[in-house]
Amino acid sequence: MLNVEVENYLLAHNNLKIIQRKDMFNFSLDTVLLANFCTINKNVKKIVDFGTNNAAIPLILSTRTNKDILGIEIQKEAVELAKKNITLNKLDNQIEIVHGDINEYVKNASKVGLVICNPPFFKVDEESNLNENEFLTIARHEIKIDLERIIKSASVILDNRGRFSMVHRPDRMIEILNLMQKYEIEPKRIRFVYPKVGRESHVLLVEGIYKGKKGLKIEPPLYAHNEDGSYSNEVRRMFGENIDE
Amino acid sequence: MLNVEVENYLLAHNNLKIIQRKDMFNFSLDTVLLANFCTINKNVKKIVDFGTNNAAIPLILSTRTNKDILGIEIQKEAVELAKKNITLNKLDNQIEIVHGDINEYVKNASKVGLVICNPPFFKVDEESNLNENEFLTIARHEIKIDLERIIKSASVILDNRGRFSMVHRPDRMIEILNLMQKYEIEPKRIRFVYPKVGRESHVLLVEGIYKGKKGLKIEPPLYAHNEDGSYSNEVRRMFGENIDE
Repeated sequence: MLNVEVENYLLAHNNLKIIQRKDMFNFSLDTVLLANFCTINKNVKKIVDFGTNNAAIPLILSTRTNKDILGIEIQKEAVELAKKNITLNKLDNQIEIVHGDINEYVKNASKVGLVICNPPFFKVDEESNLNENEFLTIARHEIKIDLERIIKSASVILDNRGRFSMVHRPDRMIEILNLMQKYEIEPKRIRFVYPKVGRESHVLLVEGIYKGKKGLKIEPPLYAHNEDGSYSNEVRRMFGENIDE
Repeated sequence: MLNVEVENYLLAHNNLKIIQRKDMFNFSLDTVLLANFCTINKNVKKIVDFGTNNAAIPLILSTRTNKDILGIEIQKEAVELAKKNITLNKLDNQIEIVHGDINEYVKNASKVGLVICNPPFFKVDEESNLNENEFLTIARHEIKIDLERIIKSASVILDNRGRFSMVHRPDRMIEILNLMQKYEIEPKRIRFVYPKVGRESHVLLVEGIYKGKKGLKIEPPLYAHNEDGSYSNEVRRMFGENIDE
C-alpha cells in the first residue's frame, strides 16, 4: 500500500532521505526554496512549520540549523510518513511532529521566533480539481485552512519581532501583503523566483516580522533554471552541491 | 538666468533635444524606464502625463507613438521649459502642456486611455530636505500632491479599461497597490528594476487597469547597469541604440 519513493537529488547531495508517496503531495522546488529563504537568526529558539506534510521543510532546515523544529500536519497518513522520515534521518531529537489542526494548535502553543509555511495555493473556487484524491486536494486547495487563517495563526504564536516566512504564487501577492499587515506581520523581504531568464515570476517568497517596522525590500531575483532547463547554480547550491561561480 | 543643459545621451541616440535647468528637477533614468514600460495599445486615443515637468516623458513617448499627449505641470518655470522643449523638437502638433493643478484639472477633463506619472517619491515627513530649492522640493516631495491624490485623479479621468502607469520606489509598493485597488485601478503588471545583478530593487514600475479584473503579473527583472557601471543593453535600447544580443 505504501508506495516508497526516494527523492534522489536531495538524497545524493544533502545526505537526506525523504520518503514520499506517489498518491500524496510530494515536496517540490518551492519547499527547497522556502527552507533556504527564511531567516534563522540568534533570537530564534524554535521553528514551527505549518502543514509540514512529510516533513520535507524540517528535514531541509536541519541542514541549516540545530534549533528545535516542530511540524504540524492535519493528515494522518502524512504524519506517519513525516515521522518515518525523521527517524530515517536520525533527527528525532531535533524535529517533532504534531498531528493536528493549525487553528487548534495555536490556541495553547508557546511563542516561537519563526513560523514557516508552504500552504495550499489555490482557493477552493479556483482551479478546484474534483478528480484529485483527498490527500492532494487538502495539500493544494484551501479546504482545511485558508490564507487568512494561516497568517492569523502565525501571528498568534509569534514572539514580538518573530518572523513568518512563506512561499506562494505572485498573483496572490496583494492579498498576502494585506493579510500580513492586518495581523501585524509587517512584510520585510520579498524574493521573486523566475523559471528562467526572460520569463514572468512563478513563485513568491515573502517574510515578515511580527510587530516589525515598515520597510519592504525586494531582493535580487532568483532563477530556478538555466536556459537548457537544468537547475541554476543557486538552486544546485540549495541542494547541497559545491559550485564555484 | 536660464541655465541651458542638453542631455547628450538622449540627444545623440533618440534625436531628441531636451533642455533642462540645473536648479530644477532633471529627468532621470526613472523617466526613461517609465516611458518605455507603459502599455500603449490601440484603445488609447490620448495619453496624459501627470506632473510632466520639462516634458521629458511626452518627448520620449513621441518616439513610441503618434497619439496625442498632454502634460500637466503646476510649476510655471517648468511649463515654460516644457513648451520650449516641444517646439525645439517640432512636436507642437502632438504634445500639449497645461499649466495647472492635477486635482483641479481632472474635474473637467475628458476621459483618456492612459495616464502616466513619475511622482514625487518622498513623503513630506520623510527625508524632507529643507535646503533644497522650491523647484526640487515640489518635484521630489509630496507637497503639492500626494500618492493618494495622484491615483484618485487618474481614476477620475480613465476610461473603463484605461491604464495607469507609474514609477516609484519598491519600499512604498504595498501602499501603492492598496491605493490603486481603493480607486478601482487593478494592478496588472509590475516590473522591478535592479541597479545591477545581485542588488536589491531600487525602482518599481507598476501598471493597472481601471475597472480591470484581478490578476497581477511580475515581469522579468530589469537591470539598469552592467557590473562595470555602464548601462545594460536593455537600457541602451531604450535610449535608441541598436544593440544585438
